[in-house]
Amino acid sequence: MAKVKKQPRPKAITPKGFRDYFGEEVSQRSEMLRAIAGVYHHYGFEALESSAVETVEALGKFLPDVDRPNEGVFAWQEYDESGNGDWMALRYDLTAPLARVYAQHRNDLPNPYRRYAMGPVWRNEKPGPGRYRQFYQCDADTVGTASMAADAEICAMLSDTLETVGIPRGDYLVRVNNRKVLNGVLEAMGLEAGDVKRDDVLRTIDKFDKVGEAGVRELLTKGRLDASGAFIDGVGLSDNQAAPVLAFLTSKGVDAAKTLANLREAVGSSTIGAEGVGELEQIGDLLAAGGYGADRIDIDPSVVRGLGYYTGPVYEAELTFEILDEKGRKRQFGSVSGGGRYDDLVKRFTGQEVPATGVSIGVDRLLAALREKGRITATPTGPVVVTVMDRDRMADYQLMVAELRNAGIRAEVYLGNPKNFGNQLKYADKRNSPVAVIEGGEEKDRGVVQIKDLILGAKIAENATHEEWKERPSQFEVARGDLVAKVRQILAGQG
Amino acid sequence: MAKVKKQPRPKAITPKGFRDYFGEEVSQRSEMLRAIAGVYHHYGFEALESSAVETVEALGKFLPDVDRPNEGVFAWQEYDESGNGDWMALRYDLTAPLARVYAQHRNDLPNPYRRYAMGPVWRNEKPGPGRYRQFYQCDADTVGTASMAADAEICAMLSDTLETVGIPRGDYLVRVNNRKVLNGVLEAMGLEAGDVKRDDVLRTIDKFDKVGEAGVRELLTKGRLDASGAFIDGVGLSDNQAAPVLAFLTSKGVDAAKTLANLREAVGSSTIGAEGVGELEQIGDLLAAGGYGADRIDIDPSVVRGLGYYTGPVYEAELTFEILDEKGRKRQFGSVSGGGRYDDLVKRFTGQEVPATGVSIGVDRLLAALREKGRITATPTGPVVVTVMDRDRMADYQLMVAELRNAGIRAEVYLGNPKNFGNQLKYADKRNSPVAVIEGGEEKDRGVVQIKDLILGAKIAENATHEEWKERPSQFEVARGDLVAKVRQILAGQG
Repeated sequence: MAKVKKQPRPKAITPKGFRDYFGEEVSQRSEMLRAIAGVYHHYGFEALESSAVETVEALGKFLPDVDRPNEGVFAWQEYDESGNGDWMALRYDLTAPLARVYAQHRNDLPNPYRRYAMGPVWRNEKPGPGRYRQFYQCDADTVGTASMAADAEICAMLSDTLETVGIPRGDYLVRVNNRKVLNGVLEAMGLEAGDVKRDDVLRTIDKFDKVGEAGVRELLTKGRLDASGAFIDGVGLSDNQAAPVLAFLTSKGVDAAKTLANLREAVGSSTIGAEGVGELEQIGDLLAAGGYGADRIDIDPSVVRGLGYYTGPVYEAELTFEILDEKGRKRQFGSVSGGGRYDDLVKRFTGQEVPATGVSIGVDRLLAALREKGRITATPTGPVVVTVMDRDRMADYQLMVAELRNAGIRAEVYLGNPKNFGNQLKYADKRNSPVAVIEGGEEKDRGVVQIKDLILGAKIAENATHEEWKERPSQFEVARGDLVAKVRQILAGQG
Repeated sequence: MAKVKKQPRPKAITPKGFRDYFGEEVSQRSEMLRAIAGVYHHYGFEALESSAVETVEALGKFLPDVDRPNEGVFAWQEYDESGNGDWMALRYDLTAPLARVYAQHRNDLPNPYRRYAMGPVWRNEKPGPGRYRQFYQCDADTVGTASMAADAEICAMLSDTLETVGIPRGDYLVRVNNRKVLNGVLEAMGLEAGDVKRDDVLRTIDKFDKVGEAGVRELLTKGRLDASGAFIDGVGLSDNQAAPVLAFLTSKGVDAAKTLANLREAVGSSTIGAEGVGELEQIGDLLAAGGYGADRIDIDPSVVRGLGYYTGPVYEAELTFEILDEKGRKRQFGSVSGGGRYDDLVKRFTGQEVPATGVSIGVDRLLAALREKGRITATPTGPVVVTVMDRDRMADYQLMVAELRNAGIRAEVYLGNPKNFGNQLKYADKRNSPVAVIEGGEEKDRGVVQIKDLILGAKIAENATHEEWKERPSQFEVARGDLVAKVRQILAGQG
């Protein structure tokens, strides 16, 4: 007879590339999002929360095909008896949904429309160390205006936001560049719109951060040996032809006026180039009028990230302090936010060009930076734990907890099996409790409670020979009526 | 020659059953979630944010089949060249992920583990009016303890939470029942575990809210004509057999002692029944000790929702004030939260029974209730709008905005085409702006600005004949240096 096969137990694991966030990781992110939302709101931006799910049609970009419907996004087909249900997908950023929302509701929205959005997005990509398939974005965009005042405003807001969440002035820099200036440079080089070499040049410029000026020069001309020894073909420009691109990338001067003059030279007689330099000048003037100096926001043509994607100004916020990488080497913390102007946001839906500009903050990187700098404490204080010495007197312990909570003190009663008192103290330890409260039958009879200062206790244990600690008691007996006052005193650090 | 067919434009719509949330809808929900998280945290609960995506295996319940893989959930197969990729799905609640997280991380978590979680969940169900396929849940659970103190604590926390978000005492009631008591009643009726009639009785009891005592009596016995004229078959019990169930449902007495006495009678000699009554008594005693009277939390055997699902205590929070329904009839607002004890949370994963108890708050219903009661204002105040009279002086206007913002006043400059001044005032109106600031060239020369009180202006427009309004100016000319002070004065309601 065949044995009835037992159903195997499901594995308790997250899907590949996903993770869980616990305790303070969650609270700290919430607090940061709240602080950022506060700045955005103060600037007149309105919250928008679109659904996590969009039609694949509306998301665009990643159209499903039968063989591999979920390239880049997580997508599925809506059930429908005919088998012709719509394809739906999880959003991969907050910009594509903004385009859909704006096209759908444009008659009801104020114009221009300033909106912010924050929440998880999903990418169907191969996960790697520290690279997850669900992560937070935090965006602010202004839709419906071509005014450089919108771009300047977003740069100012980004600067204010970084200072608000705890990055002091001097530890960050918002750098601004402009795609039109680059287009002007390409025009000045004789590479007109449509020339395939333009894309080659753009792709090469993207590597400027990595390979530097000399590397880009090689890649634009005859090619280059990379670090692994492989030869990378060059674009095939002559040294003369490559010169304007390099002039553009290195045109940062001692001040904005000098930088703008260098750029004007680089774009030569190109109209679009002159327009781009003019835009940078406008942004600079508006920011100067608002009191934002080059120590906070600077025009810097070496910003290349996003130049391929955006159509006008491009901005990036970098943290400039140094951290130690996983190999113990010093390096700059780097970019925590980027954005720019893109003018084809809703054209897909309506046929109409609508100018827009916006920024996205990498919340998790920003949190990592604050933790790195010690601006967020890693192990915060847990609740006061009221231990259970006599399980029949649970009501007594609940009353203590209620008193502590009513006094504004985070507190809980031990809810596990109270038999082993050691387990209760281990539990308090795992909870990072600052204080444990103990009331056995004998204490109850005498109208007192024992209060253990666990933070001090831990310090004493660590420095057992240290005279200062040895002399201080870490456990106190107080009258039951003084419970709240004594706990409050310990929490205030006054033993 | 065939014409090149133009790609049709994508439709700018949300998928069926999804929606967008704008402005204050988003901020108000964030504020409520923050307030609730504050209470949960104060009670010693820790935040948990699991990913939105789980393996279908870990979610359980809804296993995919080839024909219709996404019954109840939104599910898709991970791409894998062999075609054997894992099935993944969006979470349909916050309890199934808690089970997975607890099973996965149990050795690192404190035990018992108090956790709260808030976020969207997704249901692949037919959408209806007001029923969306993505909505928020806000849960708190204690895992790893069978103590009734955990259940009492959650009831107390639920009561505190409702008061914290703005439901005053008297406008809500947390009601507690117990599944074990019902099991005792069924045992007393001679329906042992495994008897198919038990399920019939459970299903019938579920209708108590809708059909009342007489309806349940008919359904338990000979059957019943429903409102549409259709005949619903009865369970086929005799009147005598049905009596204990009805006694249970209607056993609420003048006070907890009387209710408990009634329940003890209803369960007769059943051991499990006596255990259930004992649990209710413990919860009542603990809550009384904590100062939670029957005006906040009450033992009430008529709570039937969830009795089929939970294994011990069951609780529900109802708002007791009346609202007008869509047809203008008065009715109680009803349930905003429910929960109870379930002891098989992680058994699927580990084989081990782990007792747990928890509650879920319907955040959107609670928000609706607060709006209904006028505790949340529907149209809050927008930003101060600085209008643009002279587009070449954008820097001047930006400076005004910067001054206002630095003074803590929400403000923005008009970023649209400034040509038509009427459009700027219409924009300010759409933004619910309290104040518009105007500085033309002539004002600039004289060193003054015009400040329009838009709230007062709207009142004057509404009550044009009202003497009080007619005499008050709604536009002021002030020195440029007094801009911030005057705006602040208007915002404070002092004209």
